[in-house]
Amino acid sequence: MHLYFLGTGAGVPSKKRNVSSYILDLSQERGSIWMFDCGEATQHQILHTTIKPGKLEKIFITHLHGDHIFGLPGLLGSRSFQGGRTPVDLYGPAGIKPFVHTALSISKTRLQYRLNIHEIDEGLIYEDEQFTIKAKRLDHGIASFAYRIIEKDKIGQLQPEKLKEAGIPPGPIYQKIKENPSVTLEDGTVIYRKDVVGPSKKGKIITVFGDTRYHDEYISFARDSDVLVYESTFGPEDLKLAYDYFHSTALQAAELAKKASVKKLILTHISSRYQDGDIERISNQIKGVFPNSIITHDFKRVDV
Amino acid sequence: MHLYFLGTGAGVPSKKRNVSSYILDLSQERGSIWMFDCGEATQHQILHTTIKPGKLEKIFITHLHGDHIFGLPGLLGSRSFQGGRTPVDLYGPAGIKPFVHTALSISKTRLQYRLNIHEIDEGLIYEDEQFTIKAKRLDHGIASFAYRIIEKDKIGQLQPEKLKEAGIPPGPIYQKIKENPSVTLEDGTVIYRKDVVGPSKKGKIITVFGDTRYHDEYISFARDSDVLVYESTFGPEDLKLAYDYFHSTALQAAELAKKASVKKLILTHISSRYQDGDIERISNQIKGVFPNSIITHDFKRVDV
Repeated sequence: MHLYFLGTGAGVPSKKRNVSSYILDLSQERGSIWMFDCGEATQHQILHTTIKPGKLEKIFITHLHGDHIFGLPGLLGSRSFQGGRTPVDLYGPAGIKPFVHTALSISKTRLQYRLNIHEIDEGLIYEDEQFTIKAKRLDHGIASFAYRIIEKDKIGQLQPEKLKEAGIPPGPIYQKIKENPSVTLEDGTVIYRKDVVGPSKKGKIITVFGDTRYHDEYISFARDSDVLVYESTFGPEDLKLAYDYFHSTALQAAELAKKASVKKLILTHISSRYQDGDIERISNQIKGVFPNSIITHDFKRVDV
Repeated sequence: MHLYFLGTGAGVPSKKRNVSSYILDLSQERGSIWMFDCGEATQHQILHTTIKPGKLEKIFITHLHGDHIFGLPGLLGSRSFQGGRTPVDLYGPAGIKPFVHTALSISKTRLQYRLNIHEIDEGLIYEDEQFTIKAKRLDHGIASFAYRIIEKDKIGQLQPEKLKEAGIPPGPIYQKIKENPSVTLEDGTVIYRKDVVGPSKKGKIITVFGDTRYHDEYISFARDSDVLVYESTFGPEDLKLAYDYFHSTALQAAELAKKASVKKLILTHISSRYQDGDIERISNQIKGVFPNSIITHDFKRVDV
C-alpha cells in the first residue's frame, strides 16, 4: 500500500499546494483506493495522476471546514459521469450528509452508484476481514476527527512440508485449510491452520489526523503507527498562534510521533506563509526530535 | 472593458479546460469586476492571473449544474480570508441561496463582507447609472438564464468653446453641468447639457448565455450585442445529441450571432470530446456563417 498526497496546504489553495486530500492506495490489498478529505479541486489534482476515481471505495472526512470538503460534490459527480458504478462509503462528522445532499440535489447531480454517508462519532467506525478503522475526536473548535486504519495481520503461507507430514495431498482442501481456523477431513482428522502455516504477516497501521490543537491524550491513538499523518499548520516558533487557531506546530507533531513510537511521521496542512527556505529549516528542526519525518508536498508518494 | 475566460469546458474539468467561469473586467468603468458562473477551481484558475477577488462586485450564475456553481463556496470564502471586504451581489436561479448558505454554514465559513443573494426570474434584474442588466429564461431541462449587460451611453465631453459662447467661465459649475440634464445659473439662465457637450459615446452590450437548446426566440435578446458569449457543447454534426442533452451546436450559435447582428461571437463550454484538430475544423465551419467568431480557451482575454 502507499499514501499519495493530492493537496497539502492549509486554508486556501496556492500555486504550490492545493487544499487537503490524501489517497491511501490499497490496489494490491483490495483493488480499491481510499481518500482522506477532499478540498476543492481534488478532482483536478487527480487529472495529473494515474488515480482512477472509479476505484474509490471509502472517503474519510476529518472535519467540515471548506478546505477539506468543497471538492466532494464535484468529485462524486465526475466519478459518476466518468463511469464509476461501484458503491462509495463516505464517513465524516455530523453535517456531511446535508452538505453533500444539498449540493447534489440543487445541482441535479444524479449519481449512478450507491453513496452511503455515515455521520460518525468516535470509536469503531468500520471493520471487515482486512481492516479495523477507529476514529477519535480532536480539539479544533468544530468537530474534527483522527482516523486509525488498522490492517489485520495476514495469515502466514501454507507450509507444504507440514501438510505432507500430516498426510494431506495437494488439492482444493489446501484453500479450505487456509481460509478456516480448523478443517475436519473426511477421515475425521482435525487440521488446525496454525499448525500448517508459517508466521503471520503483521498488518500496517496508518493514522491520519484532522486539524487540531495538540494534546497528550492523542498518544495512545497514534501508538505504533507505521505512518502518522499529522497537521503542521505552524512552525515550531508559532506555538501561541497554533493554539489560538486550534492548530498544531511541527514540533508538537514530532513530539507526538516520538511519544507514540510511530515509525514514520508525515507533516501536512502547511500554511502558505512558509516558503521553501522555511520548510527546510522546520524540517531540520523536527528531525532533531523525530528523525524519520518528512514535510510532504502535493503529488508526493509514500510507500507504507 | 474586457472579458477574461477562466474556464471554458463542459461538464467535467480536463487538463486543458476548466469548468465554466468568465470575468467581465470593469476596472476602468467602475473599479470592479463581474463574474459569470463559478465552476469548481475557479479560484485556482485565478491564482494564475492578475485578477483580484477583492474587486469582485457581482456574480451571475446562469444555472445550477455543478460545473457552473461548485467553485462558489471556495471562492467566496477565500475572498474573505484574503481581505475582501466590499459587498458582493450574487444573482442566480432559485436554489442558489440554499446551496451557498448550506455550504458556508456547514463549513463554518464566516464572510467578512456582505453577500447579497438574488434569486432571479427573467426581466430586469439590475439597473444603475451605468448599466442595465436583463435576464432571459432558456431551455436546458433545469432553470437556465442568459444575461444581457447593457452599458448606458456615456454623455459626451463638455465642449469648452460652447460653454465660452454661453459666457460661462471655467469652474466647479462645469462639473455640475456635466452631471445634470439642465442647470440654472445665478442669473436665471438655464443651461441644457445637450447644448454644450459633444456626441455621446455608445455603451457596450455583452450577452452571456447559459447552457441551452437553440431557439429563434433568443435572437431579440442577443440583438446588436458587441459580444455574444454562447455555449457550443457540440460540433455542427451533432445536432441530435445537442437537442437530446439540452445543448446547442457551434453552427446554431453562429446562426444566432448572424440573425441577431452581433459584432462578435465567442463560443465556450466546449466538450472534451473535441481535440485541437476538431476545434480548428469547427472554427472554420462556423466562420463561413459568422466570420467574427472565436472558440475561446482558458485564460483568453477578449477586449470589448
